[in-house]
This record gives sequence, C-alpha cells and structure tokens, in this order.
Amino acid sequence: MKAVTVVPGMPNSIRLRDVDKPSPKPGMVLLRPLQVGICGTDKEIIEGKYGKAPEGSQFLILGHEALARVEALGDKVDSVAEGEVVVPTVRRPVNCDLPVDYCPMGHYVEHGIWGLHGHAAEFSVTDARYLVKVPKEVVDVAVLAEPLSVVEKGIDVAMRVGQSRFDWRPSSALIMGAGPIGLLATMVLRLMGLKTVTAATRPADSLKARLAQEVGSKYLDVLTDKVEGEFDLVVEATGAVGVAIDSVKYLAAGGVMVLLGVYPQGGESHDLGSLLTDAVLNNKAIVGSVNASVKHFEMGLQHMVKSKSEHGNWLGKLITKVSTLDNYGDAYTWTHDDIKTVLKIGE
Amino acid sequence: MKAVTVVPGMPNSIRLRDVDKPSPKPGMVLLRPLQVGICGTDKEIIEGKYGKAPEGSQFLILGHEALARVEALGDKVDSVAEGEVVVPTVRRPVNCDLPVDYCPMGHYVEHGIWGLHGHAAEFSVTDARYLVKVPKEVVDVAVLAEPLSVVEKGIDVAMRVGQSRFDWRPSSALIMGAGPIGLLATMVLRLMGLKTVTAATRPADSLKARLAQEVGSKYLDVLTDKVEGEFDLVVEATGAVGVAIDSVKYLAAGGVMVLLGVYPQGGESHDLGSLLTDAVLNNKAIVGSVNASVKHFEMGLQHMVKSKSEHGNWLGKLITKVSTLDNYGDAYTWTHDDIKTVLKIGE
Repeated sequence: MKAVTVVPGMPNSIRLRDVDKPSPKPGMVLLRPLQVGICGTDKEIIEGKYGKAPEGSQFLILGHEALARVEALGDKVDSVAEGEVVVPTVRRPVNCDLPVDYCPMGHYVEHGIWGLHGHAAEFSVTDARYLVKVPKEVVDVAVLAEPLSVVEKGIDVAMRVGQSRFDWRPSSALIMGAGPIGLLATMVLRLMGLKTVTAATRPADSLKARLAQEVGSKYLDVLTDKVEGEFDLVVEATGAVGVAIDSVKYLAAGGVMVLLGVYPQGGESHDLGSLLTDAVLNNKAIVGSVNASVKHFEMGLQHMVKSKSEHGNWLGKLITKVSTLDNYGDAYTWTHDDIKTVLKIGE
Repeated sequence: MKAVTVVPGMPNSIRLRDVDKPSPKPGMVLLRPLQVGICGTDKEIIEGKYGKAPEGSQFLILGHEALARVEALGDKVDSVAEGEVVVPTVRRPVNCDLPVDYCPMGHYVEHGIWGLHGHAAEFSVTDARYLVKVPKEVVDVAVLAEPLSVVEKGIDVAMRVGQSRFDWRPSSALIMGAGPIGLLATMVLRLMGLKTVTAATRPADSLKARLAQEVGSKYLDVLTDKVEGEFDLVVEATGAVGVAIDSVKYLAAGGVMVLLGVYPQGGESHDLGSLLTDAVLNNKAIVGSVNASVKHFEMGLQHMVKSKSEHGNWLGKLITKVSTLDNYGDAYTWTHDDIKTVLKIGE
C-alpha cells in the first residue's frame, strides 16, 4: 500500500513509499483513512526537527489528524463495527496511569509523530479504545476533530483553572492567532457565548479575518491595530514568543491565559519583572496545554454539530487545500493564507 | 496616641507621630495592637515606591500584619467581644463582589498599605467582619498569621489549579527563598506531607537553612549547589525574576508553580521560547497569587496549632528581632539574616 513517510531526524526525507498493509492485532482495528489533515507538527517532522519512527522501522508514516472508516476488527473488539466512520485520537500511554494527555515524555507514543505510524496511508491500525464515532452530519468536516480537540482541551483547562479559585465567569476572550487553532478557538468561545477578539497578522480583508468575523468575533490586524482592553481568557495560538509574553498584560485580573503553541528556541524579553508582578498582583494564571483525550474529541464533535446548525458550512471553509496521496508534495507545502490542508485518501 | 507614619510617595518620610485616637463607627471595632510584623511591602512604602494615604489624610499609618486585642465595639457588632485576641485581615473591598483577594486594583483598600491606616499605632479601627480569632495556644506567634495567610492562599491556589485538570497528587515541592514566606511555605508543605527542598542564597549553616531543615526540608544553598530533579509544586518566594523564570524547568509534567513575590521592573531572559514550549508540552501551570481571605487566615492558624504540636517553638524562631514604637527606626531596617521583625506595642 502507499504511505507518506519520513526518516525522522533527516530533513526533507519525505517520500511516498510502498509499504506492507498492516493487520490488526487483538484489541486493534484496521482503518481505511478517508482524509488526513496536515499541521505545523508535520512540518517540524518533515524538517527533521521532531518525530520518531516505530521501534524496528527505518521510517515513520505521517498523519496524526485523521478521519477514517473502520475496515476490519482485530480479535476482542466490540466497541466499534466495520463501516463506521471514526476519528482516532493521537496519543497512547506507555506505563502511565494519568489521563493520556498528561503523560510525560517517555511515557507515550503518538500516531504519525512519535513511535507509531500515522494515517497518511491507504490503511492504518490503531487501538479500538481510542476511536471516537463521528456524527453523520459532520463527516465532511470531521477531519478537523484533532485540532479542535486541542482547542477543546485548552479552553476546558482554562475554564477549570479559572473556576478552581473562585466563581469565575469569563465574558470576554482574546484569541491570538488565526490559523486553524486560533479560528477553531474563536468558534468554540463564540458558541460558549463569550465576546471575542481574534488578533493576527493577516489583513482585515483576508479569508482568516472574514472567517473570524463570520462567527461574530472582532478581527484585529495587529500590524495596523492595537489590542485594546482586558480579557478574562486569552488563547495563545501563534507560537510566537513575543506575542505570548505580551499577552499576559491583556488578561483581566483573575484571568487565565492558555498557551497552545510550540515556540522557537530563543526569544528575549526585557521587562519580565513587570510581567511577573502583574501576574501576582492580579492573580493571573498561565497554563500550557498539549494533546487531548477522547473526552475533548467528543466535545469537539458536539461543537461541530452546533457550529453547522448556527454557521452552516463555516468549518468547511477552513479547508483551503485538498490534495491526494499521489500529489502529496503539494499538500506538504505552506503559505500564510492556507488554513487547513487535507490529504484525501479514501472515499 | 503614637503611630508610625509615612507620607506615601515620599522616600524616608517615616515618622513617629502623635495622632488622634480613632473611634469605631457602627460595624467597626477599636483594636489595641499587641504586635505588628514588618515585611517587604513596608520597605517599599518607606522607600516611597508604593502606598496610599486614607482619603483626607496627609499620611498613612503603617502596619498590615497585626495581632491585636479587641478594645471596644462599635454599634451593631456581635461577632467578637471585648478582650478577644484577633488577627485582622488586610484588604477591604470597594464596589467589588468577588472574594476580596480577587478584587482588582481600584476596587479595594488595604490597612497600612493602600487607603486605610494600619496597626503600627497604639490603637486602630477595622471592620469587625474581617477579624479572625486566635487560638490561645498560638497567641505568641500569631503575628505571623498574615504572611502565613499569603502562603496558605498560594498553596491552596496551586492545589486547586493542579487538581482542576486531573487527579493530581503532588508529592514533592521546591520552595525558592527562605525568608518568612519561603520558610512558612516549607512548614505548610511539610505539614501536608510533601517532600520538600528549600533553596536560597544563605549558607548551609545559617539560621534560615537550619529552620528549613528543622521541619524536615532539604536545604540547598544555590550559590554552591544546583537544584536537582523535578517537583510537582514550586513556590516562588524570592521576588527575583531570574529565579522565577528558571524555576519553570524544575516543574514536573503537570506541575504548578505559584508566584508570591513582587519583582523589580526590568529583568531579561534569553530563551523564553524553550520555557514556553516546555510549559505547553508538559502541561505546566504558572499562577500568581496575592493577598488572602479570612479562610486562609483560619487555615494558617490551624497550621500554627499543628506546627506547635509537631515542631514546638519553631514558629517563634522566625521572629529574629523585636522592637518597640519608640525604637521604630531599628525595626524598619533590614539585613539578609533577619527573618521577621516585630514591633511590640501592647501587652
């Protein structure tokens, strides 16, 4: 079968290979990937900066954001049935009793990223316990479930952290960044009824700006406009150090900032003292969040259903490029105006 | 009556003045301060960097850490009785419905700091609703209740934030700093059963080091030894920017750092990118905490009782200097080996 592969650690080693079709062991499921989304983590892996091949393999099959059909069941699987359309979560625990998204490095593997093959292939296998069934009405956009799950966890964490201290009732949110994570965070926070501002570096007439506005957010081009006011909740989804640091000051007293980016090494700041004092005197919290559990995928799929009924095909507009396995090179290139690229594999 | 006063904003304007004895309005109580503790906030006020006089007053009476006897009751007070020994909390809300310690700047006043006179005087008045009764067995050390309340809130917040996300069970803590806040945090975390390391710049044979060790903490002189390992909880109590930033890396995955210091303006760091990425990939939380509510004073007094039964006069050893109103100049000077200075006023 065909699969998009890299040799982890080797820049630009991305290749379409012909590899053996996997078969599901007991508890596992054979999947027919229908669509695979591509994100910044794939880019890092392709650039040789991250990623790990499964034990005994020279290469790693890419693809951690997947929509798939259950093709065949391994022994002892009764939680799903052949033909069902599902989304597999990414991470699997290794000697870790915590919720899987809290397992520390060394205690997990991740499909398409770290020690497990991904779904950018004609077939893939995964543990049946980590499959989330997709409601029929959102099958067309459910390839977005993985990035949405990251957003759901981040917002869930921010809400829990904020409400753990006092009866915190956030009414406003600032979303820094208008990539898939920033736009999906905007969507969720708007569905939750918060007043939002989405700030990014695209112009006010760009697709990203329009999409933020279409769900009722105020869009701000930070190259021409300043962020004004204070926000109960800040979602940092740019991966830019300066933006993350600067955003602490936009938090209202008692507010929570959730960091969802991965930041380049280095990055300076020259008045951390004032930032820290502000965090103390105003009871501000800053919390990092990564990955997501089955629960967050389910929350995401519910929000997709709600989004469809309130905003029609808004989610579909986030998919700005569709490619195929044979054209995979086109899929794994980026411009700043792309939002989400999807590799279409099966039907 | 005699009172230690400053003119806020004017460096070194500290004076012992003869001022009018206050009288308690309805709902208020006249206090006879017995002891007043002195801390870094007093220092900032004396240096003219912080502080605000009550409306209509040219000066501010210092003293926010107080142990006092109820001298007389204003009308409509039935929650305390004359002769009771109490600790007043510091902050009072102004048009704010949040828990008082979460009220933002502009929505509170603070005795001895911001818009309300303090207790470094022969008499003081305060709202009866914010008095906490002192158990008899800890009257001798209850002047430490205010700094201890700040510690209790910080640890309470860290526990709540940590446990809001998953079934977090911290077993280890790192306390940066061995001033009153660092040592009291060490005491509380040890009473809670955590394994602790207390790190500061005093030598291993200093009083601060010995006090940390006496409650079962490992003491580390950071000028000669490196912090090793990872900790579920970090208490930042140095007020040094570099220490606060560096400490994020000592947090275990899923860990929580609470910031309790006030940090000098400025302060640089050159690899914030790695710090932020670490916070994200390991679900780390950083939370600022300031002030405390009645609940935290009560928690502190309970811990004082427990400390006395487990560690005898340990709390008493934190009081390294005692002065009087007439000798106030001596009380308001500092060395790095002082832990807590107390102004003794009444009997």
